[in-house]
Amino acid sequence: MKDLSPTVTTGPLPASRRVWHKGERHPDIRVPMREIDLHPSAGEPPVTVYDSSGPYTDPAAGIAIDRGLPRLREGWVAARGDTETYDGRHVRPEDNGFAEGARLVPEFPVRHTPRRATGGRAVTQIAYARAGIVTPEMEFVAIRENLGRKAAKEALARDGESFGAEIPDFITPEFVRDEVAKGRAIIPANINHPEAEPMAIGRNFLVKINANIGNSAVTSSMAEEVEKMVWATRWGADTVMDLSTGRNIHNIRDWIIRNSPVPIGTVPLYQALEKVGGIAEDLSWEVFRDTLIEQAEQGVDYFTIHAGVRLHMIPMTVDRVTGIVSRGGSIMAKWCLHHHRESFLYEHFEEICDIARAYDVSFSLGDGLRPGSIADANDQAQFAELETLGELTQIAWARDCQVMIEGPGHVPMHKIKANMDKQLEVCGEAPFYTLGPLTTDIAPGYDHITSGIGAAMIGWFGTAMLCYVTPKEHLGLPDRDDVKTGVITYKIAAHAADLAKGHPAAQIRDDALSRARFEFRWEDQFNLSLDPETARSMHDETLPKEAHKVAHFCSMCGPKFCSMRISHDIRSEAQKEGMAKMAEKFREGGALYMPLDKDGGA
Amino acid sequence: MKDLSPTVTTGPLPASRRVWHKGERHPDIRVPMREIDLHPSAGEPPVTVYDSSGPYTDPAAGIAIDRGLPRLREGWVAARGDTETYDGRHVRPEDNGFAEGARLVPEFPVRHTPRRATGGRAVTQIAYARAGIVTPEMEFVAIRENLGRKAAKEALARDGESFGAEIPDFITPEFVRDEVAKGRAIIPANINHPEAEPMAIGRNFLVKINANIGNSAVTSSMAEEVEKMVWATRWGADTVMDLSTGRNIHNIRDWIIRNSPVPIGTVPLYQALEKVGGIAEDLSWEVFRDTLIEQAEQGVDYFTIHAGVRLHMIPMTVDRVTGIVSRGGSIMAKWCLHHHRESFLYEHFEEICDIARAYDVSFSLGDGLRPGSIADANDQAQFAELETLGELTQIAWARDCQVMIEGPGHVPMHKIKANMDKQLEVCGEAPFYTLGPLTTDIAPGYDHITSGIGAAMIGWFGTAMLCYVTPKEHLGLPDRDDVKTGVITYKIAAHAADLAKGHPAAQIRDDALSRARFEFRWEDQFNLSLDPETARSMHDETLPKEAHKVAHFCSMCGPKFCSMRISHDIRSEAQKEGMAKMAEKFREGGALYMPLDKDGGA
Repeated sequence: MKDLSPTVTTGPLPASRRVWHKGERHPDIRVPMREIDLHPSAGEPPVTVYDSSGPYTDPAAGIAIDRGLPRLREGWVAARGDTETYDGRHVRPEDNGFAEGARLVPEFPVRHTPRRATGGRAVTQIAYARAGIVTPEMEFVAIRENLGRKAAKEALARDGESFGAEIPDFITPEFVRDEVAKGRAIIPANINHPEAEPMAIGRNFLVKINANIGNSAVTSSMAEEVEKMVWATRWGADTVMDLSTGRNIHNIRDWIIRNSPVPIGTVPLYQALEKVGGIAEDLSWEVFRDTLIEQAEQGVDYFTIHAGVRLHMIPMTVDRVTGIVSRGGSIMAKWCLHHHRESFLYEHFEEICDIARAYDVSFSLGDGLRPGSIADANDQAQFAELETLGELTQIAWARDCQVMIEGPGHVPMHKIKANMDKQLEVCGEAPFYTLGPLTTDIAPGYDHITSGIGAAMIGWFGTAMLCYVTPKEHLGLPDRDDVKTGVITYKIAAHAADLAKGHPAAQIRDDALSRARFEFRWEDQFNLSLDPETARSMHDETLPKEAHKVAHFCSMCGPKFCSMRISHDIRSEAQKEGMAKMAEKFREGGALYMPLDKDGGA
Repeated sequence: MKDLSPTVTTGPLPASRRVWHKGERHPDIRVPMREIDLHPSAGEPPVTVYDSSGPYTDPAAGIAIDRGLPRLREGWVAARGDTETYDGRHVRPEDNGFAEGARLVPEFPVRHTPRRATGGRAVTQIAYARAGIVTPEMEFVAIRENLGRKAAKEALARDGESFGAEIPDFITPEFVRDEVAKGRAIIPANINHPEAEPMAIGRNFLVKINANIGNSAVTSSMAEEVEKMVWATRWGADTVMDLSTGRNIHNIRDWIIRNSPVPIGTVPLYQALEKVGGIAEDLSWEVFRDTLIEQAEQGVDYFTIHAGVRLHMIPMTVDRVTGIVSRGGSIMAKWCLHHHRESFLYEHFEEICDIARAYDVSFSLGDGLRPGSIADANDQAQFAELETLGELTQIAWARDCQVMIEGPGHVPMHKIKANMDKQLEVCGEAPFYTLGPLTTDIAPGYDHITSGIGAAMIGWFGTAMLCYVTPKEHLGLPDRDDVKTGVITYKIAAHAADLAKGHPAAQIRDDALSRARFEFRWEDQFNLSLDPETARSMHDETLPKEAHKVAHFCSMCGPKFCSMRISHDIRSEAQKEGMAKMAEKFREGGALYMPLDKDGGA
C-alpha cells in the first residue's frame, strides 16, 4: 500500500541549517529561514536565504505523510474568535470521479473538522488589514521578507529600476498590513490550511514563483504528486497549484494539502467538469458552487476563477492562430456558446466572493483568453478580458476578498511591458501572476527557457508571482526532474527580477557566491548556488578529486590560464606597490616612458 | 588512428532538405538554406530557415575530415587579382607547445599554400565596400539573410521595437555593401578560409550566435573538438571560436578550420602565451606578431585582441569583487604591471591592422576588463576600456579593417541597456558581440539560462552576435551535450531578439509551428522546433505510440481537457452560427437575456 504513506525527499541542503526568527508583536511565531555556512577561511557569517521547503529540510522534524504537517496556524485562527467548526460536506463518489475499489486513492487518514466564518463575517487577511489589525500572518511575512536583516544595522546601498514599485529598505508588519489593505499584496491563507507557512504575493515584496503539479486522466499517481509538491518546495516553489484533472481529485488533493508547507491553488472548474462527466455544457452554477465549498473546506488557499471570459468576447478569439489555450477559458467559452448565455461564473461572482470570504480563499482571476502563440499576443480578446478582471477585482475588494490577476502566456519581448502597465492600470495594482511569458514559439522542449526570459523581464516590470513552465510544456506531463528544472529556472528569473528592481537584500547572495568564486572556495560556490548538487556534479565530471575542491583553477581554462589566479597575483603586486601611488603613476600615457625598475619591475 | 580521420555527425535534420538559392549578380554562387517539409494536411509550403550547418547535413556531400570541405570561395578571392600565394610560415615545435611523438596531434594531411595581399593592399570586405564593389560574399549574405523571400511578393507586416536599428523589409546586396562600408556590419572571411560560407554580423541583420570550443591543458582531444565544431553548427552556431590553450594548438586549429563551414575566431594571445611557456611576463610583440601571421595564414577569420586593457586601468580593477575575469585581459594586465609598461597590443595596434588587412582577418576587440560578477557590472574599469575600444575602432577603420566589439559578462537586467547605448555611442555603431550577459551569479550549472535572459535582452537592444554560455560555465570544459544546450539556448535568445526587433521574416517559423500545434500536427511541431529530437522524445516519454502522433491531445491535459480541441469545437460552432451575426448578437450584456434556441442552442 505505498499510497498509504508515500515517501518524500527530506533532509537539509548542503551546508544548510533551518533556523527560526521569533516574532515581536507575536512572540509565539517562529519564522523559518535557511542559513548556508561558509568555509572558515572565508571569515564570513552564514548567508541567510528565503526558505519555502517547510519541515522537510529539518532533520529534527518527524515527517509522516499519513499524519500531515503540524497545524502551525490553528491557534492563530481560533484565537480570532470569528470562526466556528462545523461538520462540513462529506465526500461523495463524484468528488473522486466515481473511482472505486483498487482505482480509488484512499482518503487521507485524518479528517479535521472544517472551520468557517460566523455571522457572514469576512475572515480574510484584507478584512483584518483594513480594520487596522496586524495579524500573526502579517508579522510572519514581514520577518520572512527581510531575510533575517535587522532594521537598524543593515541599511544597504540601493540600486535598481523598480518602475514605480515602492520597496522599503526594511519590511515592517505595519507595511505588510498596509499593502494587504490596499490590495497590492495578498497572503493566501485558507483558515482550513493551517499547515502552511504564511507568505505574501505583491509587487513590493520578493518575487515569488508557483509550481504546477497534478495528475491527468492519462498518467501519474497520488504518491508521485505528493512528492512533486515536496520536491518543488525544496527547490524554492513559493506556492503549488494542484491542476489534477483525472479521477481521485478530492483524495489526492487532501494528501497534498495536509502535507503542504506552502499555499495550494486550484482551478475548481476542473473538478466541477469531472463531476458532470467531462461535458462542458452540463456544467451549472450548483455543481460549481458545491465544488467551491468542498475545496474551501479542504483548505485550498487560492482559486483560479475564469469569470473574465464573457459571451461577447468569444468571437474575438475565432480568428486567432491558437484560439483559446486556457483549459478553464475554453471550457467556459464552450458553455457560453452552447447555451448562448453569459458565463455563470461572471453572473454569480458575488456569491463566489461570499464563499471565499468565509474561509479566506484568495482569488487568482484566470486569464482564460491569454494568447497561446506569438501571433495572438496582446490582442483584443486578451485585453477585453483583462478589463473585465479589473471590474471583478473591485467587486471582490468590496467584499473583503484577496485578489491577484493571471497574465500570459506567449508574448514577444517588445510586447511584455504593455501587459504589466495595462494590468496595473485596469486592476488597481492588484498583484499580477503570469505564466512565463514565452518569448518565442519555436522551442518545444526548452519552454522553461523561452519563458524564463519573459518571466525575468515581467518580474522586473512588477509581476508579483511567476508561474513556472517546465521543459515538458506543450509536450507532456512534467515528471520530478522537469519540476526541478522548472523551479530552478524560475528562481533564476525571480531573483534576476529582484536584483533589477533593487531589492535591498537580493545581491547579498550573488556577492557571497562571487567572492567564493574569486577565492576558489569551490564548496562555498556549490553550497551558495540554487542547485548545489548540479553545480558540484558538473565540476566533478572533469575534476573529481577532493584535492580539486581547493584547486586554484578549473578544467575550463586549466591552471596557466586562470584569470582569477592571475588577478590575485595582480592584486598582490598592486598592493605591494600601493594602489594610490600606482594609480597616480599610471595616469593615462604617463606610464609609457617610465623606466623599468632595475630588476625589470618584478 | 581515429585522430587521423575523426567521425563527425552528418545527415539531415528531420523532414529537412538543404536547398540552394542562386545569385543574380554572381550567378555562380549558391546560397544554402534548410527547407522543412510539413504534413500534406497542412496545405502549407515548406518553411525555409537559416542554415549554418554546411555540407554535413547534405546527404549528397561526400564528407572526409582528412580532406576538408570544398574551397567555396577560392575562385572568388583569386578573381579579385589583388592577392598572391606564397610559401608562408612553416610549423615550428612551439606552435604545438612542443608536443612530440604520441602526444603530437598529426598535421592536417593537406597543406594549402597561403595567400596574402600584394602591394600592401587591403583585401578586406570593408575595403571593397568602400570602393563601391559588391563582392560575391555580399550577395551571398543578402540572399541568406532574406531566408529565401522574394522582394516583391512577400512584404510582411512589420511589428517590433528596434531601438534605432534600420532593418529593411528586404536585404539587397547593395544594402549589405553599404552596412559593411559604414562599419555597421562585418563579414568575417579570411582569404585563407575559403571553405566558409559567408555570413554577416550587424545590428540590421539577423542576430547571430557564437559557440566556443577548444581543449584546455587539462582535457579533450582534436577529434572531440572537430566534432564539437560540426555539432555546434548543426544546431545553429553562426561562428565558432577555438579557445584551445593546451598543446597541439596549431594542428588542432588546422583540422577545425579546414572542416569548418562557419567563420572561426581565436584569441591569438593564448597561443602566444604557450610559446613562452605560459609566463605572461615573457610575452613580447615579436612572439605575438609571429602568432598573428601563423593564424592568418591558417585562415582564422577573426582575432580577439585585448588591446583595450591599458596600464592606467589596472588600478581600477583592484577593488572589484572578481577582479579581471577575461583570460586575455588578465594576461595583459599582468604583463603591463610586471613591466610597468603600456600594453604592446595597444602600442602596436597599427601594425596589427596591417597584418589583418592583408588577409581580411576581422577584429573582435576584446573586453579584457568585463565584469565577472553582478557587483562589478558597468564599473569604471569596464567603461574606460570600452572608450579605448572606440579609439581602436577608428584606427582599424582608417586601415580598412573590419571590427566588432566584445561586451560583458555579468550584468543585472537594469544595467544591460546602458551597455548597448554606450557601445553604440563610443564605438561608432561597430557591431557589438556580448558574452551573455549573466543576470545573476547564483546559478552555476544553469548559466546558459542566467545568461540567455541577458542575451535575449541585449540582442533586442541591438547586439549583433551573442556568444553562448553553456551549463558548464564556471565549472568545467563543456562536452558535446553542453555545447548543444548552449547553442539551442542562444538560438532561442537570438530568435526572441529578432522577433522583438521586428525582423520581417522572424515570425514565419513561430506562426507555422503554432498552427501545427493548434491543428495537432505533432510531427510538424517537432520538425519545426529548434531541437526536433528533444521535442519528440519528451512527447514520447508519456505517449510513445505512433497513434498518439495524430492524437488530438497530449498527456499534459488528457483528451477531455484539451483547450485546443475545445477551441476547434468553438470555432466550428461559431462558423455554423456565422461570426458576424454572432458578434452582433453578443454585444456586451445583450446576450444576458437572450432566449435559448428550442434545442438549447446546440
